[in-house]
Amino acid sequence: MNYRECLVNVAPYVPGKNEEEIKKEYGLDKVVKIASNENPYGPTPNIKEYLNGINFSVYPDNYMSNLRSKLSNKLNVNEEKLLFGNGSVEIIQMISRAFLDKGDNIVTQLPSFSSYFSEAKIQDAEIRTIKYNENYSFNLNEILDLIDEKTKIVYITNPNNPLGTVVTKDEVYDFVSKVPNNVLVVIDEAYFEFVRNENYVSGIELMNEFRNVCVLRTFSKAYALAALRIGYIVAAEEIITNLEKVRVPFNASTIAQKCACIALDDETYMKDSVGLIHKTIDYIYERLDKLNIEYIKTQANFIMINVNGASKEAVLKLMKKGFIVRDGFPLMDNWIRVSIGTLQDMEEFLKVFSEVV
Amino acid sequence: MNYRECLVNVAPYVPGKNEEEIKKEYGLDKVVKIASNENPYGPTPNIKEYLNGINFSVYPDNYMSNLRSKLSNKLNVNEEKLLFGNGSVEIIQMISRAFLDKGDNIVTQLPSFSSYFSEAKIQDAEIRTIKYNENYSFNLNEILDLIDEKTKIVYITNPNNPLGTVVTKDEVYDFVSKVPNNVLVVIDEAYFEFVRNENYVSGIELMNEFRNVCVLRTFSKAYALAALRIGYIVAAEEIITNLEKVRVPFNASTIAQKCACIALDDETYMKDSVGLIHKTIDYIYERLDKLNIEYIKTQANFIMINVNGASKEAVLKLMKKGFIVRDGFPLMDNWIRVSIGTLQDMEEFLKVFSEVV
Repeated sequence: MNYRECLVNVAPYVPGKNEEEIKKEYGLDKVVKIASNENPYGPTPNIKEYLNGINFSVYPDNYMSNLRSKLSNKLNVNEEKLLFGNGSVEIIQMISRAFLDKGDNIVTQLPSFSSYFSEAKIQDAEIRTIKYNENYSFNLNEILDLIDEKTKIVYITNPNNPLGTVVTKDEVYDFVSKVPNNVLVVIDEAYFEFVRNENYVSGIELMNEFRNVCVLRTFSKAYALAALRIGYIVAAEEIITNLEKVRVPFNASTIAQKCACIALDDETYMKDSVGLIHKTIDYIYERLDKLNIEYIKTQANFIMINVNGASKEAVLKLMKKGFIVRDGFPLMDNWIRVSIGTLQDMEEFLKVFSEVV
Repeated sequence: MNYRECLVNVAPYVPGKNEEEIKKEYGLDKVVKIASNENPYGPTPNIKEYLNGINFSVYPDNYMSNLRSKLSNKLNVNEEKLLFGNGSVEIIQMISRAFLDKGDNIVTQLPSFSSYFSEAKIQDAEIRTIKYNENYSFNLNEILDLIDEKTKIVYITNPNNPLGTVVTKDEVYDFVSKVPNNVLVVIDEAYFEFVRNENYVSGIELMNEFRNVCVLRTFSKAYALAALRIGYIVAAEEIITNLEKVRVPFNASTIAQKCACIALDDETYMKDSVGLIHKTIDYIYERLDKLNIEYIKTQANFIMINVNGASKEAVLKLMKKGFIVRDGFPLMDNWIRVSIGTLQDMEEFLKVFSEVV
């Protein structure tokens, strides 16, 4: 077969092991997966009522009218500025397909979300990165030095995954005002609902002034709908029109569209669960301080912890005790990323962590 | 913004109007949508039981182990020969991304499924087509004349959509044996469960002998799960490995995976609904013969009917009476495509059809 040559440099996504595999492998009754930044409190229970009335045999609404209308009202943006994806990861794919040809480049943070990298590689584009600074945040001005006439996209993850830090309102404004206005600035706000830093700004607030700024959001994190696959982008109409050209039809399922609507109708539930996660984060800080363990203060629903040495070993030790966490992030060899589970799960995690690591 | 130049030639997918829009527009109480080849009998009722136990907040199984294992057993193919998509349309996207660069070409039938065309255009590839013959089937040898060293993919829809005809076992074998073995032959079998022609063969039976042959299937048609978005490809391991590189993670939702499993566990239900559709097709033949209306004998769950003149007008007349059908297929200006609804819906359709068309 004659595959495209650039695929040689592309590796498929490798997710973490799942609970069942680890239960079997280590003979455990209970396994806590705190590896994928999921919300342990689940979505609004209102969803259950809907599920018995689904018309399975009919294709989804390709325009996603109800969800579009509801979100347009909530965000106070025009309906034509929205596009939905099979998870926000599919929108990263669409952006890459709409903007990147061989010889083009993207600029992003290192570490950040792996799909920016893989999707750019599939388009045969070059990847340029800036490294975090001493506060585990980023000096966005370093991105400006890497932009040239072949730069099509800049990705900023805010809050950053996996670091959990944010770039502030002033930093974002200053940066965006200096980026050439034909370079697309994608601000990935997958975790914005968890932010407590008062100097944070959503990219949506910049969009009127800067038409090259767009924002990625997801229902997989705070809204706890990861199983259903639904995310969205807010962008200028012209950008949406071009992304629509590369969107496969019916890419968000009927159930995903409907459950996202139900979730938006019960924001109190989501906010309460975010509140519980904040309390749990504060508890974790306290415990890690006492244990004298280095960590990065987080604005998301996960926390980076320095395990002082090979993270692979720490991950394995924790796995054998029934806790799935994640490591292997670029430039973060000594660190593990732990999603914020329930308070009880995190108490148990910290107990085990202090014993084995 | 600097979009890729080839997007100029790409149009987004335009689905048909939905029931609600048409009810409003024409003041109708009931609208029958027989435009998208859906199964009016729905999926197995066993699905209902499952829906209350979903863990919404956790990401889907990216390897899709349960569904993979079940399908592997059913089809008697190695698990590593399977890959799942967010509908089989997403797999057409993956194939295009894995094989097509600027200057490459695909060869397919005209008419056939529109996504082969749009996905090739997004890759900046050339599209070459063969036309149907006097039986509304295809002489596949004509494809051979169009293949050159830049041909990467041949798509054959079998049964063809929208014509409903099949190419036979002998024709497929003869064709495949003559295609250069570095050209991927994609046989799209979205409608194979409906085939009654005894000379039909699934491409899966050719895969051992011809490693460049792969088969697309879907749960959206006979299995009546269009709302959930799940389809699959059967192909040689090497092909799957390369498609995996361009697959976005978690592309099939937890619910889609699980409901596909439940559907596979109750094949009797699916086969019974296909049986009802066959009876309805025979009834439609009988009525159309009496009305002296030209139609194409179908091996799928839709039928092409010649409306002798502008199809646009017929579609509008039917819509005003509450029936949504489809027209606008290349080379089929005088024809409409009607999906097979329930027997009752089709009786009403034929009554209205004979009055207004």
